[in-house]
Amino acid sequence: MTNFRFIIEYDGTDFEGWQAQGEDHRTVQGCIAEALATLAGEPVSLMGSGRTDAGVHAEAQVANARFETRLREVELQRALNATLPPDVAIRAVHRVDDDFDARRAALSKRYRYTIWNHPLRSPLRARTSWWVRAPLDLSAIEKAAGELLGEHDFASFQATGSQVKSSVRTLLGAELSGSAGGALQLEFEGDGFLRYMVRNLVGTLVEVGRDRIAPDAIAGILSACDRAAAAATAPAHGLTLVSVRYRDGASDVWAGAGE
Amino acid sequence: MTNFRFIIEYDGTDFEGWQAQGEDHRTVQGCIAEALATLAGEPVSLMGSGRTDAGVHAEAQVANARFETRLREVELQRALNATLPPDVAIRAVHRVDDDFDARRAALSKRYRYTIWNHPLRSPLRARTSWWVRAPLDLSAIEKAAGELLGEHDFASFQATGSQVKSSVRTLLGAELSGSAGGALQLEFEGDGFLRYMVRNLVGTLVEVGRDRIAPDAIAGILSACDRAAAAATAPAHGLTLVSVRYRDGASDVWAGAGE
Repeated sequence: MTNFRFIIEYDGTDFEGWQAQGEDHRTVQGCIAEALATLAGEPVSLMGSGRTDAGVHAEAQVANARFETRLREVELQRALNATLPPDVAIRAVHRVDDDFDARRAALSKRYRYTIWNHPLRSPLRARTSWWVRAPLDLSAIEKAAGELLGEHDFASFQATGSQVKSSVRTLLGAELSGSAGGALQLEFEGDGFLRYMVRNLVGTLVEVGRDRIAPDAIAGILSACDRAAAAATAPAHGLTLVSVRYRDGASDVWAGAGE
Repeated sequence: MTNFRFIIEYDGTDFEGWQAQGEDHRTVQGCIAEALATLAGEPVSLMGSGRTDAGVHAEAQVANARFETRLREVELQRALNATLPPDVAIRAVHRVDDDFDARRAALSKRYRYTIWNHPLRSPLRARTSWWVRAPLDLSAIEKAAGELLGEHDFASFQATGSQVKSSVRTLLGAELSGSAGGALQLEFEGDGFLRYMVRNLVGTLVEVGRDRIAPDAIAGILSACDRAAAAATAPAHGLTLVSVRYRDGASDVWAGAGE
């Protein structure tokens, strides 16, 4: 058995998220596992660095799977890409140590959230941006984003009903780019993210930008540890998993080294 | 009757082009004319600056229509955008002189063709870029593009079977941007374009980039006035109509001044 690491790009629009849910559901994990099983001639278990929700995109998701094959990495990649549908592709394949686990070995993840901040909706941006028509105060958003950095209990930004041992996470980066009245990007890097956490952070930061929440109210929202203290969840289609970082580097860099 | 000028953005993926073709066909012109007819209470004839083919996108297509309405421009725009499907939107509406005709008054048009020049297909770019995996010689493409500038008979780059009085057009600009091994853009500005002309120019320029046609063969391809002298047509989904220029300005500028 060889352990392979895969770097995966997908347009999440027509997927019911990453996580396989059985035959009636079109998921990224399901599609790739099925293609691997055909190549390997037996069921293959594919483990992602984490789930992405329905509609969320990825530039460089990471997963690993153990199976027997005579194919070299580049042949495996070509065979998979020839089989996979147009909205998912394997950007790179590497043999890795047998104990590598894409989920447990992940050191941090980077997400980008794109907002189309304009009075009018934009059909050409509709699949990958959240349309926010209200003018946004970017300096207020930047100030609030700064308050989120570091180690906090992010329970107020976790999907209702989540059951995790701890909702303490460390946000390593939260950067705003772009221009008001156009396309805005919010990038978040963290050692881990709770369910809906990025989308809940974005929902709250947009309320800050609309002057409905003050930037210095962020500390109180965090300490409340209550989902009701933060704002509504931003929609899935604006979110992209950009990269996953491991001891040997980040997935968007490895992908560039692919075939 | 008032004559209105509309600036229109659309994602062409799910349209059978601009030109209305009857009820069973989903076209941009058909969708907007139907929305206008509902508002005006009578059939409305909408005239575009020109057709775009099935799958071709537009950032700022221009059209005009004459009808009676009590609505102000901004109200008309809002009412239309509330009715139109997600893949088409009205970026601006202006009252114009009664004799304004979006097709006949157009001085020039600008198109952008996007190529994803990488060994691997990219799901997140699949809707708007042509995937060309072979390495391309960008300086050869630039040299060939320069040979296309100016007034020529573009019969070699016209769809087979076209029946136009003259296939002489003036290409005012042909610029390459981006980097080899990534996303490339070819932008063309011209006083008019024959059917498939941009896609046929791109198909030929890519063959130049692949070293299958020499840049100095362009003059001969032009003078042949024979479609068989040029290369195959590039696919529609890489093409976007960027703007249309009139005596009072270009449509991408007016669109920015919209609601």
